[in-house]
Amino acid sequence: MDVNGPQVRKYLRQFVAEPKKKVRLKNYDTAWVPREELKIENEDEIRDQLRTLLEKNRMELAKAQELLAASRQYSILIVLQGMDTSGKDGTIRHVMSGVNPQGCSVHSFKVPGDEEHAHDFLWRYERVLPERGMIGIFNRSYYEDVLVVRVHPDRMEELPPAIGSGADGFWEGRFKDINAFEKHLVRNGTVILKFFLHLSRDEQKRRLLDRLSHTEKYWKFSFTDIAERQYWDQYQVAYEEMLAATSTTYAPWFIVPADHKWVARTAVAEVITSAIEGLHLSYPAFSDERLQELSKAKKDLEQE
Amino acid sequence: MDVNGPQVRKYLRQFVAEPKKKVRLKNYDTAWVPREELKIENEDEIRDQLRTLLEKNRMELAKAQELLAASRQYSILIVLQGMDTSGKDGTIRHVMSGVNPQGCSVHSFKVPGDEEHAHDFLWRYERVLPERGMIGIFNRSYYEDVLVVRVHPDRMEELPPAIGSGADGFWEGRFKDINAFEKHLVRNGTVILKFFLHLSRDEQKRRLLDRLSHTEKYWKFSFTDIAERQYWDQYQVAYEEMLAATSTTYAPWFIVPADHKWVARTAVAEVITSAIEGLHLSYPAFSDERLQELSKAKKDLEQE
Repeated sequence: MDVNGPQVRKYLRQFVAEPKKKVRLKNYDTAWVPREELKIENEDEIRDQLRTLLEKNRMELAKAQELLAASRQYSILIVLQGMDTSGKDGTIRHVMSGVNPQGCSVHSFKVPGDEEHAHDFLWRYERVLPERGMIGIFNRSYYEDVLVVRVHPDRMEELPPAIGSGADGFWEGRFKDINAFEKHLVRNGTVILKFFLHLSRDEQKRRLLDRLSHTEKYWKFSFTDIAERQYWDQYQVAYEEMLAATSTTYAPWFIVPADHKWVARTAVAEVITSAIEGLHLSYPAFSDERLQELSKAKKDLEQE
Repeated sequence: MDVNGPQVRKYLRQFVAEPKKKVRLKNYDTAWVPREELKIENEDEIRDQLRTLLEKNRMELAKAQELLAASRQYSILIVLQGMDTSGKDGTIRHVMSGVNPQGCSVHSFKVPGDEEHAHDFLWRYERVLPERGMIGIFNRSYYEDVLVVRVHPDRMEELPPAIGSGADGFWEGRFKDINAFEKHLVRNGTVILKFFLHLSRDEQKRRLLDRLSHTEKYWKFSFTDIAERQYWDQYQVAYEEMLAATSTTYAPWFIVPADHKWVARTAVAEVITSAIEGLHLSYPAFSDERLQELSKAKKDLEQE
């Protein structure tokens, strides 16, 4: 990995989509479980271990975030993508609950309106980037503009006819814009961590049926999820091209096996905590002059 | 209380600044402890009870927030004001950690820049209001524009000379603008809860000295805190006038005793949870037609 890219624990690197390499999602097991890593066969035992690890990471993350805020040097941008029901919301809830909400902002992007369509496709995301010292989470992101818009060309905003959204190189151009945008952010102190929650078509069916079988989950169900499911294969292709084109050393994609929620959540938590730890942050240091001022302020206050 | 105002548990109403009544902060005990309410004399025991109550509220809040998000009818705006070291940051961390960060946004407002000064004083706050289904927290707020700006007239933005920021009725005008702004928000489904963390001058001294006595707390210390402390009495007057003018039935101020952090945090948590509970939210109901559609979607999916 690039020195400018996020530093993560070694075993997590297996999830990284190697920059400039073709991606075949079928070669990534959606139901992967760390049997070999943990040297355990029994799945229940593995699940218990991962849950303990998630809890440990959650506590470490709370501490790491305080240091991030105190040092005010870096910001963290977490991008979550994945098919409907792949667990984006649950991952945010389980990984980030416990973090001081003052240091963490989450943005879920909805169907863009006319004002948003009247701007370049990065505009609405740029406006809500996390400031230095903060963790920002994008629940879906500008990557939708090379995924859903690619699968549904009728949702493309109106561009000058000369540009022609269907023309050769159009998507290649968007990928380059995204890479340049992310490089710019990295150069300005943002650590970018991108997660594709990789779900199987069968597991999606199971989760949708689960929502349709419990009245208290009805509100989570959306008919568009069913409609989008018909485009499964087109989405997989769009994801493969996007992952290959935009996984870089400075802003890598992690392809996270998402059929088991406890695997996905723990993997995401591990990547985030280890990436922040990899920054080797420390509380701000003070010059001798500053220390003298502090000492004087203390004396003055005591004698007040 | 107004039916359009937040509904809170009865004993919490003692903290409410009664609308249209003069406020004398000296009559509010900053070190208040719920001795009579709990019928306990020993302060350690009271503290333990309040910490348990805070924990209970924190869990209730996590549940209440899910319902708030599911029903998508109301948004909650929490405004925190108080002198430096009064515990605004700590209150956010202790009350809101545990809440899903996806449903909660916190904004800390810094010294305004030229662009912000070039707009009306509510502009920068308007832009980051919580959307329906969300809890938004303002750590400091537009109330700074009738507090710090009032104590330091040189920090006033440039207004048309005819308006004259020092003129008769200027602050009265700002109070009316704030009340109208908040009424507008309430009419559009925002529940507004405003907390003044009421700290004594002695306790502030103790907390500042604490920060100056531990190197690991140095980064929290700011020399402006010391500078602002010199204006203590002017701030108290500005607060008194602001509280009297802007505590309304629809957006009341809670004057929270803040010398004991465990009292302030629990009181704030209690007000927030009981106000959300007072909305009597429920998961969205479905029409017969919708239920049939859901049932059909389920069958189709099963037979896929």
